[in-house]
Amino acid sequence: MSDNLSKDLYSALCAIPLIDPHSHIDAFAPTSRSLDDILGYHYYTELAHSAGMSHEPLRKETSPRDRVRAILGHMGRFDNTIQYSWFVEIAREFLGFTGDRVTVADTDTLFDAAQKTFAQPDWEKQVLQKTKLEAIFLTNEFDDELDGFDTKKYVPCLRTDSIVFHLEKANVRNRLMDATGVDFGDAQSLRKAIWKLFARFKAKGAKACAISLPPDFTPVKISDSELDRAVKALSGDSTFAKAVFGGVQFAKSIAGTSSATDASPQTAVAAGMFWMLAEHCREFELPFDLMIGVNRKVYEAGVYQGQDLFDRRTSLIQYRDLFNAFPEVTFPISVLTSGQNQELVAYAWIFPNVIPNGHWWYSNIPGYIRRDLGERLQAVPKTKQIGYYSDAYKLEFVLPKYNMYRTVLADTLAEDFVCPKRLTETEAVALGKRILRDNVREVFHV
Amino acid sequence: MSDNLSKDLYSALCAIPLIDPHSHIDAFAPTSRSLDDILGYHYYTELAHSAGMSHEPLRKETSPRDRVRAILGHMGRFDNTIQYSWFVEIAREFLGFTGDRVTVADTDTLFDAAQKTFAQPDWEKQVLQKTKLEAIFLTNEFDDELDGFDTKKYVPCLRTDSIVFHLEKANVRNRLMDATGVDFGDAQSLRKAIWKLFARFKAKGAKACAISLPPDFTPVKISDSELDRAVKALSGDSTFAKAVFGGVQFAKSIAGTSSATDASPQTAVAAGMFWMLAEHCREFELPFDLMIGVNRKVYEAGVYQGQDLFDRRTSLIQYRDLFNAFPEVTFPISVLTSGQNQELVAYAWIFPNVIPNGHWWYSNIPGYIRRDLGERLQAVPKTKQIGYYSDAYKLEFVLPKYNMYRTVLADTLAEDFVCPKRLTETEAVALGKRILRDNVREVFHV
Amino acid sequence: MSDNLSKDLYSALCAIPLIDPHSHIDAFAPTSRSLDDILGYHYYTELAHSAGMSHEPLRKETSPRDRVRAILGHMGRFDNTIQYSWFVEIAREFLGFTGDRVTVADTDTLFDAAQKTFAQPDWEKQVLQKTKLEAIFLTNEFDDELDGFDTKKYVPCLRTDSIVFHLEKANVRNRLMDATGVDFGDAQSLRKAIWKLFARFKAKGAKACAISLPPDFTPVKISDSELDRAVKALSGDSTFAKAVFGGVQFAKSIAGTSSATDASPQTAVAAGMFWMLAEHCREFELPFDLMIGVNRKVYEAGVYQGQDLFDRRTSLIQYRDLFNAFPEVTFPISVLTSGQNQELVAYAWIFPNVIPNGHWWYSNIPGYIRRDLGERLQAVPKTKQIGYYSDAYKLEFVLPKYNMYRTVLADTLAEDFVCPKRLTETEAVALGKRILRDNVREVFHV
Repeated sequence: MSDNLSKDLYSALCAIPLIDPHSHIDAFAPTSRSLDDILGYHYYTELAHSAGMSHEPLRKETSPRDRVRAILGHMGRFDNTIQYSWFVEIAREFLGFTGDRVTVADTDTLFDAAQKTFAQPDWEKQVLQKTKLEAIFLTNEFDDELDGFDTKKYVPCLRTDSIVFHLEKANVRNRLMDATGVDFGDAQSLRKAIWKLFARFKAKGAKACAISLPPDFTPVKISDSELDRAVKALSGDSTFAKAVFGGVQFAKSIAGTSSATDASPQTAVAAGMFWMLAEHCREFELPFDLMIGVNRKVYEAGVYQGQDLFDRRTSLIQYRDLFNAFPEVTFPISVLTSGQNQELVAYAWIFPNVIPNGHWWYSNIPGYIRRDLGERLQAVPKTKQIGYYSDAYKLEFVLPKYNMYRTVLADTLAEDFVCPKRLTETEAVALGKRILRDNVREVFHV
Repeated sequence: MSDNLSKDLYSALCAIPLIDPHSHIDAFAPTSRSLDDILGYHYYTELAHSAGMSHEPLRKETSPRDRVRAILGHMGRFDNTIQYSWFVEIAREFLGFTGDRVTVADTDTLFDAAQKTFAQPDWEKQVLQKTKLEAIFLTNEFDDELDGFDTKKYVPCLRTDSIVFHLEKANVRNRLMDATGVDFGDAQSLRKAIWKLFARFKAKGAKACAISLPPDFTPVKISDSELDRAVKALSGDSTFAKAVFGGVQFAKSIAGTSSATDASPQTAVAAGMFWMLAEHCREFELPFDLMIGVNRKVYEAGVYQGQDLFDRRTSLIQYRDLFNAFPEVTFPISVLTSGQNQELVAYAWIFPNVIPNGHWWYSNIPGYIRRDLGERLQAVPKTKQIGYYSDAYKLEFVLPKYNMYRTVLADTLAEDFVCPKRLTETEAVALGKRILRDNVREVFHV
Repeated sequence: MSDNLSKDLYSALCAIPLIDPHSHIDAFAPTSRSLDDILGYHYYTELAHSAGMSHEPLRKETSPRDRVRAILGHMGRFDNTIQYSWFVEIAREFLGFTGDRVTVADTDTLFDAAQKTFAQPDWEKQVLQKTKLEAIFLTNEFDDELDGFDTKKYVPCLRTDSIVFHLEKANVRNRLMDATGVDFGDAQSLRKAIWKLFARFKAKGAKACAISLPPDFTPVKISDSELDRAVKALSGDSTFAKAVFGGVQFAKSIAGTSSATDASPQTAVAAGMFWMLAEHCREFELPFDLMIGVNRKVYEAGVYQGQDLFDRRTSLIQYRDLFNAFPEVTFPISVLTSGQNQELVAYAWIFPNVIPNGHWWYSNIPGYIRRDLGERLQAVPKTKQIGYYSDAYKLEFVLPKYNMYRTVLADTLAEDFVCPKRLTETEAVALGKRILRDNVREVFHV
């Protein structure tokens, strides 16, 4: 009975049009152009490399078809994974594949089918329709082009990792000066530059500010004079800055220091800029998406985008001052590990401005989603939960990823709500719609 | 089959009379007097506030009926939560409500029904009978009145947070002097005061000493001379004491310091008093309930009792010295997060004096209970587990909370024991009874 | 349907011959000689002691029969545990027991049956056949005898805890000198000694190097001159060494120190020796089994082998340098807590040389296995997972432990793969065989 119920709920959930609140879609090239775009997704290159594939097929010199053949040639080693099942679903839904399992023998057939399919002039439209995707959020660098596409469909979001964590790099500073016309050298001029960024993004329909944060990051307010000194160090002698800021100490927590002046200039800048961004989110009424927990470049010899891991020993207590200081700012929060979900549940249950947001990266597999979602639905107000985002780089991934989520959501609603008679089937679908769609609209003012 | 089995087990478990080993019941006003007492429970004010309700309806000036209306007016935003389902159950079991969902439209009906129902002279008796509640443990401040009620039914317990963590406050010190008649100013006189407290509580039938502890607390033994110095600092100039002891450093761990003298006087006092309490638990043969992991006042603008959260990075290794030093003292231990349950399981499996105790606060929802309970039943001797306590402020909550627990317990016994043929149905009920009731009697000598 | 499916899968999995990649079997006495050998397993002595049994029956002076009677006399207190069910299975499978529950009344019958059964000249052969056990890995001290048994069946593995963590002990140093003929006093001579050990073990068919590590251990490379100085301190005045290295600071992490010279000599030696072992694993092409997370002697008054616990606050980020420095070495990794499984999954998904290995010690119960296994199967390449090892001290335990695992594996394959139509039943069994057997052969070159 539970099985049929899950299926019915799943069908009903699939009928709800999607607004996807976080992705890495390029608005100027939202769909794939070849199968290489699909299998070049870091999940596949990571898994193939982890299972034994060398870097060789990933070099520019390798033809797309040969690269696809190499990855498919290793797929038999990870065809147990959920990521593999996304690919099979793409092949079946979009490429006319009718088998159950994809192997290296399917390389040419699939590659050719993809060439033909993706070349259709209305391919983007087809994918959007099949996916019932109304709008999808982007991840924009501060100097990204925001003209030339429908920002109602491809919703700009200001991604701020570089502003907070890479301001010691001359090219980031130069890009920021170019983008804002502000020749910053102290806290005040930096504030002016940031204000200009926000004004431009807001004018172009941006719906959020976003950032990913290392596990040891702890937001603290620092004074303008402290920020001044730190920024001046950064903007000064670049050799000096590199010496001071390079290496693994980057973005170390400044927890435990009563002021950020005890920390390195780079740490002080990170603290100051992060706080400044929160202030602008308040002024411009933008939610601030925090994606907490990633350490960059842990596996130095990893594939592109496949080098990041984490230290699970992180806590939302680090964000205590931030949540208290900015009651007007909504913080949709993604955590990297399922182990941190209980904190997210508890903080969202207590703090009005804390909102659980999707299932990020290493937690984006059914086992973790089932657990984390179940906990959230039992204890966090339903109006405060963003169910899911695709994190996709190409539109073709939105469907299989949301289908995975909807399968888990349907099971969860069936097992935790309908079977124990806490909700009827109709009410359960309404609860699903709320976290899948309604809350995205309300939280991000779409 | 599993469903019917669960139902049968649930019915059998519901027939077992309860002894509830932890609550915040006021023995002089154990039941609710209006619906405001029910919905004033911090779970509801927290969830309503987190979902958007201001502090306005929670002010004294607001009439109880209007406060109830305001909270019910926000309940539609958190009617997915398990806490909501407790309330529906209270309405149905105690207030004659017959619907499936409570809305703001039910305000007056329910409020009036509650007024009438709760005013019945035998209401307390009715609730006790309906709940099959034989006895319930209290949480008593050291100077609480212990005369004037049936201590077999309302069992006194000495709660010691203020003695350990708030002795820098003049009013706490004064209350302690008043309660004991001891004008303490050093370790020896403090020991005398504590002895008197224990003697009084023991004479009045107290069955446990209890305390809640922050995640970074680490018990260490300090010498009387160290405690002397720290206490003298506390008892001295109160302005000085406030300057030294105020602020966020309160109750910081002294882990890593070889003696507590390196720590602040307040930390030293906390360490010294905690150890002294353990010594008195040994002398007076009282279990020492440890509730590990809460940080107080994290959300400073939160509702009353809705400001506390936690840092999940805590470990039972911090209690290593304590468990080794007091083999004669039983420590029923509650952990705040499900993530700490495996430590609790392992420490209880190894240390004879460590006992898992219930499902506390942020872990008191079915998802966490199912997981934590399943783990405990697979690896901790059955004679060493206290299944559940209600943590209730009013008697009406004991029934729905225990029903939630019994539902999970029945499912767990069905899935993990009866279905795999490890136990018969009768044996499974006996296992349930052991952790629900028998162990409470044995561990606390009731 | 799922139930029948699980049963079918379980039967199919049970038909696969086993190669058990980690145990504590004594190749010269692989089977039990009396029931005392079975119930002397630390799980039973721990649980009995934790449930109230004194040390008295565990003394040498107690007769084996009386010791068995004492433990069985306490078993009623922990007959809910999975460890109890292993014992019932041993009694049923090997001792002709036909009941469902074992009690103290069965003492003499079982004890006598065991005497008779275990005395059969072909008992070892019977157990191996009944268990379908082809080969089992040992845990050898560096000076263990490696001649006189079939190393194809009892596969030597070099266990290195003493080399890394106990080199301050004169008897360890003396044993190492005896075993290698190298009178070491500095890094270079130590390296020569280690090389000789590896050469001997490799020649005798060793298939892995292994070590268990405390939760705060962080591998770092130290220079030979640093190691020199540290080793000289160790090899010098033994009173001095004892003073410096004794006590609880043993094997403390040196994380955060840029070189190990800031650490104690003992810590520096541990770091240096660990790194040296990894270098030899590379040279001798041996996988390096890391068993991460145990603190030794936490419960000082515990039973033999029942004193170890842990601090769950540990992270694989501590092993970042190691995984990067040794891409040619395979690291099969066991974690002590389920909470660390997500890191293990993620690190194995990214690092080619990281492999999840079994379900260790406090995580070796169905609740944790189900969760950890499900996560691994959804996200780690199937060719990179070692499903299980028995960790057994006597051969009789291999069967019930693997049966527990296979039950969970069958359920997992049914629920996560066959029911959602990701795999057919036949494919699911093949996936099971891969992680149960094929990967053991490939990873360890058996």
